[in-house]
Amino acid sequence: MKLYQRDEIAAAVGIDEEALRQVEAGFAALGRGEAVQPPILSMSMEEFNSEVDVKTAHLKGWERFAIKVSTGSFDNPKRGLPSLSGLMMLFSAETGRVEAVLFDDGYLTMVRTAVAGAIAAKHLSRRTSRRVAVIGAGEQAHRQVEALRLVRDIDILDVWTRRRESAEAYADDMRRQGLEVHLHDSVRAACEQADIIVTATPSREPLLQARDLPEGVHVTAMGSDSPDKRELDESVLTRADAFVCDTRAQSEHNGELKVFAGQDREPPFKVHELGRVIERGETLRVSDAAITVCDLTGTGVQDTAIASFALSRLAQGG
Amino acid sequence: MKLYQRDEIAAAVGIDEEALRQVEAGFAALGRGEAVQPPILSMSMEEFNSEVDVKTAHLKGWERFAIKVSTGSFDNPKRGLPSLSGLMMLFSAETGRVEAVLFDDGYLTMVRTAVAGAIAAKHLSRRTSRRVAVIGAGEQAHRQVEALRLVRDIDILDVWTRRRESAEAYADDMRRQGLEVHLHDSVRAACEQADIIVTATPSREPLLQARDLPEGVHVTAMGSDSPDKRELDESVLTRADAFVCDTRAQSEHNGELKVFAGQDREPPFKVHELGRVIERGETLRVSDAAITVCDLTGTGVQDTAIASFALSRLAQGG
Repeated sequence: MKLYQRDEIAAAVGIDEEALRQVEAGFAALGRGEAVQPPILSMSMEEFNSEVDVKTAHLKGWERFAIKVSTGSFDNPKRGLPSLSGLMMLFSAETGRVEAVLFDDGYLTMVRTAVAGAIAAKHLSRRTSRRVAVIGAGEQAHRQVEALRLVRDIDILDVWTRRRESAEAYADDMRRQGLEVHLHDSVRAACEQADIIVTATPSREPLLQARDLPEGVHVTAMGSDSPDKRELDESVLTRADAFVCDTRAQSEHNGELKVFAGQDREPPFKVHELGRVIERGETLRVSDAAITVCDLTGTGVQDTAIASFALSRLAQGG
Repeated sequence: MKLYQRDEIAAAVGIDEEALRQVEAGFAALGRGEAVQPPILSMSMEEFNSEVDVKTAHLKGWERFAIKVSTGSFDNPKRGLPSLSGLMMLFSAETGRVEAVLFDDGYLTMVRTAVAGAIAAKHLSRRTSRRVAVIGAGEQAHRQVEALRLVRDIDILDVWTRRRESAEAYADDMRRQGLEVHLHDSVRAACEQADIIVTATPSREPLLQARDLPEGVHVTAMGSDSPDKRELDESVLTRADAFVCDTRAQSEHNGELKVFAGQDREPPFKVHELGRVIERGETLRVSDAAITVCDLTGTGVQDTAIASFALSRLAQGG
C-alpha cells in the first residue's frame, strides 16, 4: 500500500491531454452502461458550518476503483485555511485491499473538473471557438480555461465576477498566460461575443439568462454541485438546442435540473448525458447557430479515472 | 496527520468496558437526535464478486467524525485472503482536515459490532442470564460471547452451526476460555435453555423461528447487514414482546425489518431503536418471561465512536 502527498501528485499529473483522455474514457464507460456509480454520500455538520461528500464509481473490468472524500469547512478562511480539502483512496476491485491513499487535498478534483469542462466543449462547442466568457474568478475559472486550451484555440477571455478586485487579479494572471482579457460590468456584456461561456461560481441564484446567450454559443455550467446552488436561469435550459449533463440523477439533485426536479416538473426538452454523447459520437450541435449547454456536477467516474491515472503515473515515477 | 496499522490498533483497543461505554455513548447521542447519520453508500462489482460499503456519522459537538470503508471480496478465500477488509479515517469536523487513517483491516468493526451486541443484551436481557445459544461459528460468534461477558456472567454456551467441523473448532476455543460448551444438531435444540440467543451468520434464509424461543429469552441478530441476508423468521419478530433495532431505516433495508418493508407492510408491533432505549433508560423487558429481540445492522455512529476512541488511545500511547 502506497501513500502519496499533494506535491508529488501535482508533479505527476496536470491538466493535460492524457488526463483528459482518461476522464473521457471514464465518461464513455458510463455512457456504455459499464459503470456502477452509487449516489453521493453527503453529510452536513451544521454547528461547524462544514460538510463532507463521498463519491465512488467502478468501471467494469477496471482493476481499481477510487473512493473520494471531499470536505468543505466554510469557516476555514477565518482560520487562514482553505475551505476545501479531501483525499482519494484506490482499492483493488478484485481483492478489496487498499492499494494507495492519495492525500491530494483536492488537487485531483481540480484536475478532473477542469478536464471535464474541456471534454464538454470538445463534444459540444464550435470547433472554431476562440473567445471564452468566464463567470467567476476562483480556481476553476483559471483551470477551466487552461483545460479548454487543450481542445480549442482560445485567445480572448471576457470576464465577469461579483468582486471587481478578484476580476483584476484573474485578468492579470490570464494575460500572463498570453490571453487577451476584457473585464465587464455585467454577465450580459461579458457573454456578448462568446463562443464558449463557462460559469464557475458558488452562486445560489441564477446568473445567466437566455437573453445573455449569443447565437451558436456553448455553455458549461460547473459551479452547481449541491442542492442549494444554481447558476443558470430556467430560460437558458429551455433555450438550448441541446442540454447535456454528466448524470441526470446528479443534475436533478445537485445541478441545474433541480429547477424542474424540485417542482416535480418534467423538463420540456431532451436530457442528454455526456457519457452517451461521447460513446455514441453524437453530434448534438446541428449548426453553427445552435446553442448547447452542459451542466457538470462532478461524478465518481471522474474520480476513479483520475485517481487510477495518477497512480499509474506515480508508480512509474517511484 | 497520523497513520496507524492494524497491530498497533489492536494493541490499543480491545473488547473491553471502555470500548463498550464509548459505543453506548454514540448510540445514546443517536437516541437524543444528536447524530447526523446519512444512508450507507454501497457499491457492487459483480464481475469480481466484490462490494464496498461506506459509513459515516457525526455526533453533534464531537471534534472528529469517522468515515469507514468496508470491502467484501467473496472470491478472496480462493486466493488465501480474508473476504473482508477496510479502513477508517478520522476528520476534524471543524476544519475538514484528515487527522488519522486507521488501516485496521476490519479490526475496529469487529470490536464495535461485538460491543453493540453486549449493549443490546445489557439493556434487554435478564440480568441473571448465564446461558447463551450461538448460531454460527465465525469471528463474531467468538467476539459476541467475549463482549457479552462484560455485561452478564456467561458460563454455558450452546452452539449450532451449519458445518459440524467449524462447530467443533469453535467449541474447543470457547472451552479454553473457561466456558461449558454443548454442540447441537438443530437450532431448536441449541436454543432450548438459552437466556440469550445470538445469531451471527451470513444466512440468506431465516434460521430462527418463534417456536425455537424459550420463555424470557433475549435474541440479538447481528448477521444480516445487506438486502440479501436474513436470520430471523417473521414469527420471531411478531412473537417478541419488544423489538429493537439499531436504526429503523437500516433494519428495513439491510436487516430483519426487510420482511415487512420489502412488501410495504407496516410491522404489527412497535419498532424501538437502541439509542432511544439507552437514552431514555427504557425498560422494555417487562417481566422475566418477556421475549426481546434486537436487530443490529451496524451504524456509522458506532464507527465514529470506536475510531475516535481508538485515536484517543493511540495518541496517548504515541
